[in-house]
Amino acid sequence: MDAYLTIIGKREVRRYQDRPISDAVLTQILEAGRASGSSRNRQPWRFIVITDRTRLRDVSTFMARPVNVSDAAAAIVIALANARAAFDGGRTAQNMMLAAWTLGVGTCPNTPLDEAALKAALGLPEEMAVPTVLSLGYPAAGERRPLRKADPAGVLKRINRLALGELVHRQTYQG
Amino acid sequence: MDAYLTIIGKREVRRYQDRPISDAVLTQILEAGRASGSSRNRQPWRFIVITDRTRLRDVSTFMARPVNVSDAAAAIVIALANARAAFDGGRTAQNMMLAAWTLGVGTCPNTPLDEAALKAALGLPEEMAVPTVLSLGYPAAGERRPLRKADPAGVLKRINRLALGELVHRQTYQG
Repeated sequence: MDAYLTIIGKREVRRYQDRPISDAVLTQILEAGRASGSSRNRQPWRFIVITDRTRLRDVSTFMARPVNVSDAAAAIVIALANARAAFDGGRTAQNMMLAAWTLGVGTCPNTPLDEAALKAALGLPEEMAVPTVLSLGYPAAGERRPLRKADPAGVLKRINRLALGELVHRQTYQG
Repeated sequence: MDAYLTIIGKREVRRYQDRPISDAVLTQILEAGRASGSSRNRQPWRFIVITDRTRLRDVSTFMARPVNVSDAAAAIVIALANARAAFDGGRTAQNMMLAAWTLGVGTCPNTPLDEAALKAALGLPEEMAVPTVLSLGYPAAGERRPLRKADPAGVLKRINRLALGELVHRQTYQG
């Protein structure tokens, strides 16, 4: 799949088919997270892969939108060494979500509502941070799917984002 | 360029050719940042593009490794609404770095050493946060370049990262 189209075409998918993700596909997604760069190559992350339905439901109770996680085919908890690693956490999460997208798997980052309780339920030490839990699954009917062929200009025109002119400054914030 | 290979093959590039990046290429990179998902689609980012050599040198003085920025063809300052948006900042940064990679442009995230002084120099309000300044340029001789064709398994075997078994847990952190 084309890299640029994958990047600009990636949309969050929150409703999934009742279809498991194979270990081979999960491994490819996790490898993309492992390959991510990080400050001083510290790799301040651990990934907890959850596929057990009972545990997915348990974890979902700590999330802002439980259904995304409870009904997902899998979840990947991104556990960071500490909260200061959140920027690197976003890098590795994006790598995994883009890799999933190229494999036809939809994803969505889910913010914990009660991070302390979530960490306790997963057996994570207090000093670690969980900025997000990725929910994963093959997109349900009506959900967005990866674009195999599309005109990038058309994709960029249709996305629900601020215009580039509202986001970009030149040389300084006043420019 | 293949999406999965772009993601796993992306390496940080810190030394650049003395060759400008065209506005068209910079725009494609910025569009990839704009397209990124974020919590509640808040898009908590602004991008300051710096190509002026004097200003690149000025900004570099606030960085942990000044030379990465002072000698870059361009820099993109990622300015966030606040420090809590760091995870989303990592997502948009990764999108831009991967898009750059597909276009043959090397990048490296640079952590500010004195974030307050950097913000003042750029005219950014105090409440905003700058988790990183991306330096960009065509890779100098001897630096890594995008892999157009490679076996993913071979790439993953050679990268300087922890093994997957050291990073991945199953169902819980103890699993």
